[in-house]
Amino acid sequence: MIQIPRGTQDILPKDSYKWQFIEERLNEIAKNYNYKEIRTPAFESTELFVRGVGGSTDIVNKEMYTFQDKGDRSLTLKPEGTAPVVRSYIENKMQHDVVQPTKVYYMAPMFRYERKQKGRYRQFVQFGIEAIGVEDPLIDVEVISMLMHIYKSFGLKDLKLYINSIGDQHSRAAYNEALVNHFKPSIDEFCSDCQTRIDTNPMRILDCKKDRDHELIKTAPRMYDYLNEESKQYFEEVKANLDAIGIGYEVDYNLVRGLDYYTHTAFEVMSDAEGFGAITTLCGGGRYNGLLEMLDGPHETGIGFALSIERLLLALEAENIEIPEPEGIDLYICTLDAQATEKASHLIHTLRTKGISCDIDYKRRKLKAQMKDADRKGAAYTIVLGEEELSTGNVELKHMETGESKTVQLDELETLLEEK
Amino acid sequence: MIQIPRGTQDILPKDSYKWQFIEERLNEIAKNYNYKEIRTPAFESTELFVRGVGGSTDIVNKEMYTFQDKGDRSLTLKPEGTAPVVRSYIENKMQHDVVQPTKVYYMAPMFRYERKQKGRYRQFVQFGIEAIGVEDPLIDVEVISMLMHIYKSFGLKDLKLYINSIGDQHSRAAYNEALVNHFKPSIDEFCSDCQTRIDTNPMRILDCKKDRDHELIKTAPRMYDYLNEESKQYFEEVKANLDAIGIGYEVDYNLVRGLDYYTHTAFEVMSDAEGFGAITTLCGGGRYNGLLEMLDGPHETGIGFALSIERLLLALEAENIEIPEPEGIDLYICTLDAQATEKASHLIHTLRTKGISCDIDYKRRKLKAQMKDADRKGAAYTIVLGEEELSTGNVELKHMETGESKTVQLDELETLLEEK
Repeated sequence: MIQIPRGTQDILPKDSYKWQFIEERLNEIAKNYNYKEIRTPAFESTELFVRGVGGSTDIVNKEMYTFQDKGDRSLTLKPEGTAPVVRSYIENKMQHDVVQPTKVYYMAPMFRYERKQKGRYRQFVQFGIEAIGVEDPLIDVEVISMLMHIYKSFGLKDLKLYINSIGDQHSRAAYNEALVNHFKPSIDEFCSDCQTRIDTNPMRILDCKKDRDHELIKTAPRMYDYLNEESKQYFEEVKANLDAIGIGYEVDYNLVRGLDYYTHTAFEVMSDAEGFGAITTLCGGGRYNGLLEMLDGPHETGIGFALSIERLLLALEAENIEIPEPEGIDLYICTLDAQATEKASHLIHTLRTKGISCDIDYKRRKLKAQMKDADRKGAAYTIVLGEEELSTGNVELKHMETGESKTVQLDELETLLEEK
Repeated sequence: MIQIPRGTQDILPKDSYKWQFIEERLNEIAKNYNYKEIRTPAFESTELFVRGVGGSTDIVNKEMYTFQDKGDRSLTLKPEGTAPVVRSYIENKMQHDVVQPTKVYYMAPMFRYERKQKGRYRQFVQFGIEAIGVEDPLIDVEVISMLMHIYKSFGLKDLKLYINSIGDQHSRAAYNEALVNHFKPSIDEFCSDCQTRIDTNPMRILDCKKDRDHELIKTAPRMYDYLNEESKQYFEEVKANLDAIGIGYEVDYNLVRGLDYYTHTAFEVMSDAEGFGAITTLCGGGRYNGLLEMLDGPHETGIGFALSIERLLLALEAENIEIPEPEGIDLYICTLDAQATEKASHLIHTLRTKGISCDIDYKRRKLKAQMKDADRKGAAYTIVLGEEELSTGNVELKHMETGESKTVQLDELETLLEEK
């Protein structure tokens, strides 16, 4: 028997309403914040991710689905959404669009070849936004506030927002130097990855999972102390405006981004709900002022975040928040014989084209089984159609919840159900 | 500059509402017909398509994106949706689900490495349904009627529905024999593909594009004459019930399906709108009673269709049907100085969390440019915030369409806009 590819999942008919509910909500919130949807292909040139995500990252080194197409181009299923959006921005010259800044969102499957573990799939759905073309602490606050609004709108409470600033390029350079001076003398006490990082991107030593208890991590210089005046002021304005709109946060000086094009604001949301498990990060984001130029684009700046819907579902589960099940169908027509089934199939055709959801039993089971079926399909109303009903044109319209029923004319059904 | 992969497209922020509109409508119609969404991964084991689509098809031979993953499994980006749904049905033993038959739909990107031409993309979105677990002319009619309802709901008029029956396995065998007898003596007058087809699946000679004007195609035996009694009756019932609900069709005896697991009802919808171009087929579907067993599944039968959203958009264009542009934002706040911009950014935060869509100018342009921006963002209302407004708390709420404005209190805004 052919099986589903390892590490992926089917979203079954009985569960898909959860994804639909979340996605509908996200579309709505994006609309309120005036972000418009953008869709990029499922794959891109491999080079885009090597340059746009970074050749030294795990994503690029270990986790990409890369292949040659029949024209011998190297393509990669997208492991993240920012680089493709920026590629599209550059290719479509969106810096010249009349509406500025460019505020877009995406909701699409991403692909990473990761080890199987709870809440991690090799294909997962990410919702992300990007605001490109403006550098202003207020839009950083918009992006963060939208993120928190999303989580809160689902009822999540056990959330922690961490923020930090990694400053502009000058601040970064000074800080990197300080880190090298701090770690270099004892770098052989660190893991082999960190021994590479000290040369490629020393900041990432700070969030190494293996070395996080090393004394030198705790005594490491703080980015904040190396921020120049402009960067400090930018960060202070972000914080003051988060305060002003009542969004709580903690500054985490070790929250860094390894790649050169990240600047200023960086943030993460963690769940501290019991039972959420080992993976506590729900979402990450930040400002990437250098990314567009690095991809041969115009001198424009951007900020965004990305969240995984699977992770959001896990967080909801951990806080015992249930997604409301959708309503069932409006009407189920039970039938007593073949002639009635045929007539019922014509009737539901008309009703459906009028926007009424309805069904019959194509398995042609007995009445009792049909009533059970109606119940399982969540029918609000049922009627029973047999020889007598067909000849008189009168049917009993039964309200399933109350059990009440009343006699109606078959050809009134449409109007009656439309009213309800 | 890194470009989008050849043959694919970005759906840009200015166009994405078209896809959203169509998808929302399709979700709604699926609900009325009581089909639930299923989502399968973007890729599957290559073997699934080789067996489930057929090793002799163009799709499998020429058009698949096939690659090895890091665990050395051969995976293929899905070129169509039926085989994955059937794989999921079998793997999840849906024949034992309490709700029967299984009625599902999908809306997902599909991937085919095809030559670039208008309306053909290497990644395209397909909406499809599958009804598995029941063999009844009435459900064939449901599937066809849903398809026609979809097209009509968008206002399309220049449509033609073609149907045919390819009977059950016995009828097929008799017919195939007749075709071989008919074509064999002159098979060297046909294209090389057809010379293979006469051995692998003779029916497909009937829809060969190269040989369609050959005299022997016109004089070929008709499937209908080889249908056995059961198959004939099944077909007659499908037609009678389409008649009963007023769905027009034409029988096309050359409408065939090459693969062995197809049975009984086959159908296609064509557009005959002027300007639709060379590709006139909008959608195809049919019954596949042999597919589940061929994939080592239970003895269950199915029927479905798949339509491409890109093709649907082309048909709408050909008939000059425009998809309604979405409404703009509810409110745009113009600001006169930095303090007002900051205050406005707090205000929109509150309004957005209340479900009101609004925006400000993060580019901090002059008032005139802001008013233009408000207009471009389709703002229903605007206010102007400056020193005076901040100190008095009074603002002029201007209705952009009528130009009328009235003085309101800043803190009434929320209630006022919620009412509107």
